[in-house]
Amino acid sequence: MPLPPIDHADALPEVRAVYDDIKATRHVPDVNNFWKVLAHHPATLKRTWESLKEVMAPGALDPAVKEMIYLAVSVTNNCTYCIRSHEAAARRAGMTDAQFGELMAVVAMANETNRLANGYQVELDPQLR
Amino acid sequence: MPLPPIDHADALPEVRAVYDDIKATRHVPDVNNFWKVLAHHPATLKRTWESLKEVMAPGALDPAVKEMIYLAVSVTNNCTYCIRSHEAAARRAGMTDAQFGELMAVVAMANETNRLANGYQVELDPQLR
Amino acid sequence: MPLPPIDHADALPEVRAVYDDIKATRHVPDVNNFWKVLAHHPATLKRTWESLKEVMAPGALDPAVKEMIYLAVSVTNNCTYCIRSHEAAARRAGMTDAQFGELMAVVAMANETNRLANGYQVELDPQLR
Amino acid sequence: MPLPPIDHADALPEVRAVYDDIKATRHVPDVNNFWKVLAHHPATLKRTWESLKEVMAPGALDPAVKEMIYLAVSVTNNCTYCIRSHEAAARRAGMTDAQFGELMAVVAMANETNRLANGYQVELDPQLR
Amino acid sequence: MPLPPIDHADALPEVRAVYDDIKATRHVPDVNNFWKVLAHHPATLKRTWESLKEVMAPGALDPAVKEMIYLAVSVTNNCTYCIRSHEAAARRAGMTDAQFGELMAVVAMANETNRLANGYQVELDPQLR
Amino acid sequence: MPLPPIDHADALPEVRAVYDDIKATRHVPDVNNFWKVLAHHPATLKRTWESLKEVMAPGALDPAVKEMIYLAVSVTNNCTYCIRSHEAAARRAGMTDAQFGELMAVVAMANETNRLANGYQVELDPQLR
Repeated sequence: MPLPPIDHADALPEVRAVYDDIKATRHVPDVNNFWKVLAHHPATLKRTWESLKEVMAPGALDPAVKEMIYLAVSVTNNCTYCIRSHEAAARRAGMTDAQFGELMAVVAMANETNRLANGYQVELDPQLR
Repeated sequence: MPLPPIDHADALPEVRAVYDDIKATRHVPDVNNFWKVLAHHPATLKRTWESLKEVMAPGALDPAVKEMIYLAVSVTNNCTYCIRSHEAAARRAGMTDAQFGELMAVVAMANETNRLANGYQVELDPQLR
Repeated sequence: MPLPPIDHADALPEVRAVYDDIKATRHVPDVNNFWKVLAHHPATLKRTWESLKEVMAPGALDPAVKEMIYLAVSVTNNCTYCIRSHEAAARRAGMTDAQFGELMAVVAMANETNRLANGYQVELDPQLR
Repeated sequence: MPLPPIDHADALPEVRAVYDDIKATRHVPDVNNFWKVLAHHPATLKRTWESLKEVMAPGALDPAVKEMIYLAVSVTNNCTYCIRSHEAAARRAGMTDAQFGELMAVVAMANETNRLANGYQVELDPQLR
Repeated sequence: MPLPPIDHADALPEVRAVYDDIKATRHVPDVNNFWKVLAHHPATLKRTWESLKEVMAPGALDPAVKEMIYLAVSVTNNCTYCIRSHEAAARRAGMTDAQFGELMAVVAMANETNRLANGYQVELDPQLR
Repeated sequence: MPLPPIDHADALPEVRAVYDDIKATRHVPDVNNFWKVLAHHPATLKRTWESLKEVMAPGALDPAVKEMIYLAVSVTNNCTYCIRSHEAAARRAGMTDAQFGELMAVVAMANETNRLANGYQVELDPQLR
């Protein structure tokens, strides 16, 4: 029942233009299902891609760090598609096995202490106000 | 009504030992409220501190990156105490204003696309299975 | 290992009464698995159905809007069963493809800006206090 | 800007009837703000109270355990009002300091391992399918 | 410690341009704190505003419905700033007291049944696959 | 693409030591997949197991109650692996069908009223401050 992915051959011109830009930017032969289902709403496809391209570009943080942050959020939210695609992206950007292991440990620890702070209703220290 | 922080002078010996290790490890004159309320359950205080010390130590990821990942999770979970204390920790570890800005942009974007993937029920691409 | 759905033929009289009311209210030939597993705890089945019938009835908001709100929450929480069943319900209530596309865009955007507000710890404007 | 609590003296008859039932059931002199703001939508007030009265009544689980479960969920969701009111309710129902400490430790641990299971995308063991 | 809002007088030209567009689009005399803190990262300010303007424009869904969906997500995520600002926006767009009451009831109900579906691990009905 | 479970025969000595302790503590012939994937990062495996063993040991709360609290959190977070493994653990620790039914009802109700408290922005009563 979910909307089927739309392949390049069946796509509207404005959708094809986005697919082509993704492929050129990422040096990949095809776009993945995420983009092919967003294609059902071309305005969302275009806006999401352009935002992502801007946000994930190299800047003050390097691309591997950005992908690891993306993965940390996706793991916290338990989005299977996002976990798998951004783990793959982080590895392509250079994340090692050891870094993946440490990333998971930090994400798990943060989720744990977030609840200790909630549960104990810890008051802000003066220097944090 | 929340449990009050327990100061060093009023703490049990096993609690003082943890406080002292935190101060020595972090080169700080006092521990913050988070630890002072966990002190109401000394086993939790000790276990949490020892885990955190191990997880956040320099390793395959540098400390600033670890603190930024911690902050990304805390922002996603909306834990005020954690956001403020780990933003401070990330800045102490070297996070710049520009890095903070990019970090927030990535966290926000990930939360957005996580829901697009959920809402469209995107099927895993073969290479992600 | 999850509890199996309980069919009408195998159900207790108080469970059958709920099934019959669902079928009559919704003009459907059978109830779906959600109700058939809640049947393992008849009090929960009855209370949940009666609450849902009251909450989702036409009122100040029309049924399609209520189903879209239900879907927005389910997407945010990433509940697959709920996403699929309430997307189907929203479409039956009249949600168009274009409305679905805009709904997803709003849900995604809200999840994004929720985290920007968290992360920047934005202070309430005077008029919002 | 949030809706103000509605006191008994200013309440509609159907709202007063709910307030009176809460006071009689819980042996308290007044209802708290949660009920007084729900009073702005009397149908929600009545339905929520009747559901809560049924769900939290002694049954196969004792009231203190039910309140601790309520608190575990509220801490996970970071609802300040709910954390404070259900911690108070759990203590009134008999939760000790030591039980509170263990409860927080379990809640924190579960939030941690939930993310390890997500992040590593652990496949279900045959006996869990 | 959170970053302070940046007023128009102190803002960079590209930030002022966004502020001016928000004021002109919404017919308001000033922008609120959310935008004034995003101004610390002008690229995020500009991208977020342009996305929001596009997503929230009248389309297949009317503006009041879009604001109610935004509010439903913000309540589910427990973002105080977002709840307050989007409740205000929804009321300005025409949401009545009765609609607000029903909206809250639907959001609460969805959060409840999402967990029943999770907890009982309900299998997808054939027509939902 | 997820990391494969590591069996005892293929495991490092420090991993085997953890597996052996889990089997001895729980009187089970093998460890489940959760531990076998954590084995890819031995420090995380060891720390997580030692924490879990300490937190879940009988204490002020009995083991069945601890497992039900674990399940309540896992249902709220929608972690399939965790729901299934901790439902099984709770049943082994003595949770009855009736207790499971009441547990689910409390978890669902708490998730519901958490959002009513958020949405109505209920102010803390004086005695909860």
